[in-house]
Amino acid sequence: MTNDRFTVISSDCHAGLPPDRYRDYVDPEHREVFDMALPMQKAVTDKFEHMFLVKEANEKWRSGVEAQLSGAWNYERRLEVLDGDGIAGEIVFPDGITEQNAPPFGAGLALPTEGIMPDLQWAGARAHNRWLAELCARDPVRHFGVAVCPLLWDIDRAVEEVRFGAENGLGGMLIPLLLTDEFEPYHHPRYNPFWAACEDLGIVVCFHSGPGPFSHFFGKGFPDNDQSQYPGALGVYISEVFFWTWRPLIFMLWGGVFERYSRLRASVTETGQGWLLPPIFRMLDHHYNDTFFSAKLGDYRSHLSMAPTDYFRRNCAIGASCMPRSDAEMRHQLGMKQIMWGTDYPHPEGTWPHTRPQMIDTFKGLPEDDIAAMLGGNAAEFYGFDRAELDKVGARVGPRRSSFSGGEPVP
Amino acid sequence: MTNDRFTVISSDCHAGLPPDRYRDYVDPEHREVFDMALPMQKAVTDKFEHMFLVKEANEKWRSGVEAQLSGAWNYERRLEVLDGDGIAGEIVFPDGITEQNAPPFGAGLALPTEGIMPDLQWAGARAHNRWLAELCARDPVRHFGVAVCPLLWDIDRAVEEVRFGAENGLGGMLIPLLLTDEFEPYHHPRYNPFWAACEDLGIVVCFHSGPGPFSHFFGKGFPDNDQSQYPGALGVYISEVFFWTWRPLIFMLWGGVFERYSRLRASVTETGQGWLLPPIFRMLDHHYNDTFFSAKLGDYRSHLSMAPTDYFRRNCAIGASCMPRSDAEMRHQLGMKQIMWGTDYPHPEGTWPHTRPQMIDTFKGLPEDDIAAMLGGNAAEFYGFDRAELDKVGARVGPRRSSFSGGEPVP
Repeated sequence: MTNDRFTVISSDCHAGLPPDRYRDYVDPEHREVFDMALPMQKAVTDKFEHMFLVKEANEKWRSGVEAQLSGAWNYERRLEVLDGDGIAGEIVFPDGITEQNAPPFGAGLALPTEGIMPDLQWAGARAHNRWLAELCARDPVRHFGVAVCPLLWDIDRAVEEVRFGAENGLGGMLIPLLLTDEFEPYHHPRYNPFWAACEDLGIVVCFHSGPGPFSHFFGKGFPDNDQSQYPGALGVYISEVFFWTWRPLIFMLWGGVFERYSRLRASVTETGQGWLLPPIFRMLDHHYNDTFFSAKLGDYRSHLSMAPTDYFRRNCAIGASCMPRSDAEMRHQLGMKQIMWGTDYPHPEGTWPHTRPQMIDTFKGLPEDDIAAMLGGNAAEFYGFDRAELDKVGARVGPRRSSFSGGEPVP
Repeated sequence: MTNDRFTVISSDCHAGLPPDRYRDYVDPEHREVFDMALPMQKAVTDKFEHMFLVKEANEKWRSGVEAQLSGAWNYERRLEVLDGDGIAGEIVFPDGITEQNAPPFGAGLALPTEGIMPDLQWAGARAHNRWLAELCARDPVRHFGVAVCPLLWDIDRAVEEVRFGAENGLGGMLIPLLLTDEFEPYHHPRYNPFWAACEDLGIVVCFHSGPGPFSHFFGKGFPDNDQSQYPGALGVYISEVFFWTWRPLIFMLWGGVFERYSRLRASVTETGQGWLLPPIFRMLDHHYNDTFFSAKLGDYRSHLSMAPTDYFRRNCAIGASCMPRSDAEMRHQLGMKQIMWGTDYPHPEGTWPHTRPQMIDTFKGLPEDDIAAMLGGNAAEFYGFDRAELDKVGARVGPRRSSFSGGEPVP
């Protein structure tokens, strides 16, 4: 018996408290530092917004929709937005409306390692994860929380966080991209205990776009240097940002991580999938199969039993935020089982408040099974939602299947 | 009156002396250090070959064809190979047969900055450039030499090298890729005097694939660490190597370098053009034209009067080494005026000793004007060859046009 509505999952949502409200979630021994750091954190974020994320644009974004955007932390408001968007389930990453709602001590989406005190970043991560666990516990059927995990500093501690996640309903671990050579790369065996714990406890390894080696684009003194000396730095940043997001997964694929941990799952979210994935796949296959160019480089594949793209198809998925119709049309090339639609709510570049019409524009007229998979089925399977329970939510809030048939009016 | 042979230019050839023979070209004050460094340089290259470039493969490559490969430095042998391959003109990069024929003091193709003494790297570059100028002076019609220019250390010195090149018949400057934040990126105005000198004196800025941030792939201790701890590191390296080659040009495009220096020319060589360029172009155009995603990032294009890809079409060209037929078939997408065929002689991954049949496989049956452009016309125009004189060589050694018509047998 088919539901007449699609069960929709947004593979890319964000949640975060206003900065001062993280205080209660920080371990008591770090609260004094928290109080001292708070005004500095706000000042730095302001400075970044001015220079980089443009305060004006962010203020304009919030203006008049403060209530709806407060769903970044206010559960009731969040439900209203999800229901309004037709969304039954969501994957919840850190950083709320903008960077102004990020966890303390540099424990936000970017997980920087420079100018960071490891113990404090862990404390910030722990604070966010505790709060996120509470948020998701309001309805575990609908909310799949991605914990913040500053893996690079300390593998044992990261393994503890995996256990915390498993015990507290957080199904994903957001780990740092690899921006420098300060730490071993992800093909190094030092990370094995972490991969093993994630596999054993069914925790998904998550990468999300945003970070990049800022000093390469904006100069070493960023954000204190004279940005007029770096014309085009933003263009350079956005030209590279997706490379840096895919990079750690490519290290894992070649490194045999999914060979050693065959049930480990990893996702990459908000990374311009349409123009980027086919060339990435082609490149990986080429280098795996055509050894003429690389013959002089010696053996680099005998530790793998299959091609990097085979591991990708078996173990990985793509959080395709705000996917354009062109992505939906090339779904077979991107991976009919990998691609997962998402809204990026409450970020300004997301689909909200135009989610429903945009969703229909993206998928209208495509085969119904394919739409169902991309809108929710793939994410339900990959992230392990309770499908029967989620369908009940979908049956109430989901977009009608008929809205997506050719020629029918958008509701 | 059309010649019945194509005038062919290889946009990617290499030349370099056996290491000890660079001694005579090194400034006298550096010869003592040269003598001390020589055995170490050989040992390090051996070590690299063992671990990375595989000594066996390189030895196999040289075995039985030592004479032909000695064209890396022996002018008569070089001419025999060029003539045999049907090549009238060539662009000559450093590093001969393999890294065993690289300039001293780290002044080879990779132009590393780590573990390098700037004065010595400059001395190595000067030695190579002096020798290369002699080589190219044997027949300036046929040989376009690319000087080694360790730009990052010292802009004034780089400008002097541009003058040396202009006065001594070296038309290109190979400058370092941007692998770290140790130096300002190429969109910083500190490089303006260098771009200005290149523009004024008609010197082409050249990038060539090969370098990458090795410590990211092979660990910080490379090449002294235990490589068994880095499975797949080679796969990671080859997956990224072209990204690092394109990177500095993308910095220049966004940075408005070609806006300020509208006659400056830059080329990128041996970078897997077919699978990579269309997505790079699409990405650049998307970020330039579609400001929805990047609206929150503020203004990054008002200093440009046109799109990055427009500068690329006006100012840049692609050294398409060993181009497969699929590249030739997508020539309009890659840029009918940008794409320049090449052999990579005498490198083991190049087309030699199968250049002529491979050339025909690549182009057979395509429109004759397009073949002529890709095989030589584009390079002649971009690098500024004396076309009338070059055609005389082409008329003697070039492949017959008839060999490329459909259905005809390969000669």
